[in-house]
Amino acid sequence: MIETRFTRAFGLHHPVALAPMAGVTGGRLAGAVARAGGLGLLGGGYGEADWIAREWALAGGAPIGIGFITWRLTASLLAQCLERGPRAVMLSFGDPAPFAAAIQDAGVPLICQCQTLDHARAALDAGAMTLVAQGAEAGGHGQTRGTLSLVPELADLLAARAPETLLLAAGGIADGRGLAASLMLGADGVLVGSRFWAASEALVPPGFHQAALEAGGDATLRSSVPDAVRGLDWPAPFTIRTMASAFTDRWQADPQALRAPAQAATRTAWANAQAAGDAANGTPVAGEAVGLIHDIAPAAGIVARLTAEAMTRLSSSSVQKYPRGERAQPPRGADSPPSAPDHPAPEV
Amino acid sequence: MIETRFTRAFGLHHPVALAPMAGVTGGRLAGAVARAGGLGLLGGGYGEADWIAREWALAGGAPIGIGFITWRLTASLLAQCLERGPRAVMLSFGDPAPFAAAIQDAGVPLICQCQTLDHARAALDAGAMTLVAQGAEAGGHGQTRGTLSLVPELADLLAARAPETLLLAAGGIADGRGLAASLMLGADGVLVGSRFWAASEALVPPGFHQAALEAGGDATLRSSVPDAVRGLDWPAPFTIRTMASAFTDRWQADPQALRAPAQAATRTAWANAQAAGDAANGTPVAGEAVGLIHDIAPAAGIVARLTAEAMTRLSSSSVQKYPRGERAQPPRGADSPPSAPDHPAPEV
Repeated sequence: MIETRFTRAFGLHHPVALAPMAGVTGGRLAGAVARAGGLGLLGGGYGEADWIAREWALAGGAPIGIGFITWRLTASLLAQCLERGPRAVMLSFGDPAPFAAAIQDAGVPLICQCQTLDHARAALDAGAMTLVAQGAEAGGHGQTRGTLSLVPELADLLAARAPETLLLAAGGIADGRGLAASLMLGADGVLVGSRFWAASEALVPPGFHQAALEAGGDATLRSSVPDAVRGLDWPAPFTIRTMASAFTDRWQADPQALRAPAQAATRTAWANAQAAGDAANGTPVAGEAVGLIHDIAPAAGIVARLTAEAMTRLSSSSVQKYPRGERAQPPRGADSPPSAPDHPAPEV
Repeated sequence: MIETRFTRAFGLHHPVALAPMAGVTGGRLAGAVARAGGLGLLGGGYGEADWIAREWALAGGAPIGIGFITWRLTASLLAQCLERGPRAVMLSFGDPAPFAAAIQDAGVPLICQCQTLDHARAALDAGAMTLVAQGAEAGGHGQTRGTLSLVPELADLLAARAPETLLLAAGGIADGRGLAASLMLGADGVLVGSRFWAASEALVPPGFHQAALEAGGDATLRSSVPDAVRGLDWPAPFTIRTMASAFTDRWQADPQALRAPAQAATRTAWANAQAAGDAANGTPVAGEAVGLIHDIAPAAGIVARLTAEAMTRLSSSSVQKYPRGERAQPPRGADSPPSAPDHPAPEV
């Protein structure tokens, strides 16, 4: 197993959180991840109370949390959800401040997803217990920073300002290599979307799953097409990463045209394609990590595999200490002595 | 030290290559990295033979290589450079096929920089000895894939098709955390740009260095502004990441307007700002890793620090194996047994 500050804080077996994907992360998936020893977060999404109530029940009593799209959350829906005793509440895409006190007063850990340094500062101002550094590789909504540089930069911010705050890496992580890399970057764990989107318990039509298995990681793009076709008013500069399709090819140059009254039939055709799992005429929501996904598997197996692969990587680490004189081919010129590392090792 | 297939193949002390940044990586910088035990690659850039000859001499006989922008390279310039016996030739941004035979006939290792799977396939077709998986975080020209998912996806391609081919990670790597993470992702080493852009030997005006030290990683963007203002015809879909500035704010919505005859004075003002190191009115070329850079230092010290920090991370790895019964708080429900890892551990 891999023990980190994150596993200790939440009593987990694996430093792995399930992304609360709107419409995708239902109760069965969240419950399966929680029972497997990860942090399962129900996809509270756009805040449909009936959907949440139904899916919460399907978790079967597993200790799950819930995630919301902050700019769509209401105080009353949050209060309803807090009554269920969630393991954590995650807020993404918007200012967490208006909701932080209610979450903290309920004794529930607050997780804030951040795409920029300013997001991270706002999350700390709101008293978040855990930050998620989400890179642009991620499926679904996000911004432009890449995971590989955003994670250590937020780790530095936390080290300077709130060293007790936990950090998860998200975006592009689908196997143990990504988990091991995230720990090296200074994260205490990972938040995983696409790999769990491709779990058997995910609320994803089989046609989308099949398309994802056939796709490489180059076959996704960030756009506003899925928001425009749904008539959603996402705040700038958030875009949504989906698989590329005939539909995104057709509309990505002018997505706002999809909002026109004359495009009602187009919008209906898109909605039908989404429901049917028609990847060419829809917009399956998946990230660049889709190129690393080669099976649809039960969530518990995915969680275990992430950790097992990461342990293999971490324990066969490539450090070899040679006494200076022993090399066959010393480079020309003198070496400078290594200076002291700038960054502390992960506290685990 | 960290020994990998890359250090063994090139006889290096450190699994670190210097990005051949056009106009920035001159002979002093390339020579310093080579003497420190990394792979120093002169920035052959747009192929100015006089500049290359002068800078090559400034490396002082260190075993350096050279990198070119492929779509600007000519057979005659390549032949000239091969006569100098470069340690390697790196080709970026374009089809390497027309130049591969000459490089291989000279017995020089061919390194190809790749931003997509198709680039990687073309590099393998051309017989490249090393691939660089460059993510969008990188400063300078590139595309949209993030480093964190591109590296393992190219590692899988190599494992299936050309397991002897080496892989370097690039984009967003400025300290030992990025190096350690890259090794976990399956790379044999890293290619580093921005961190060496901030070396004392880099051909960068002090004003740009100062601006970079004050900037966070959110303060960069990909655009075509610097190409349009220079009248360069970069092929789509390459863009160039620079620090954001008043100049990019003004022109990013319509960079092509900078090519108009009426904008001659604007172009001159930009060129003057570039020469003077006026970051507000120019476009300093740096990547998202700028948020991880807090000093201007000699290149040898940067190389040594990268490895020392990575070793600290790798050797304090967070794997702890607990017997099953020992945990205080086992999660509810049964664990699945971990399946066998899909990916081999790094061969080091």
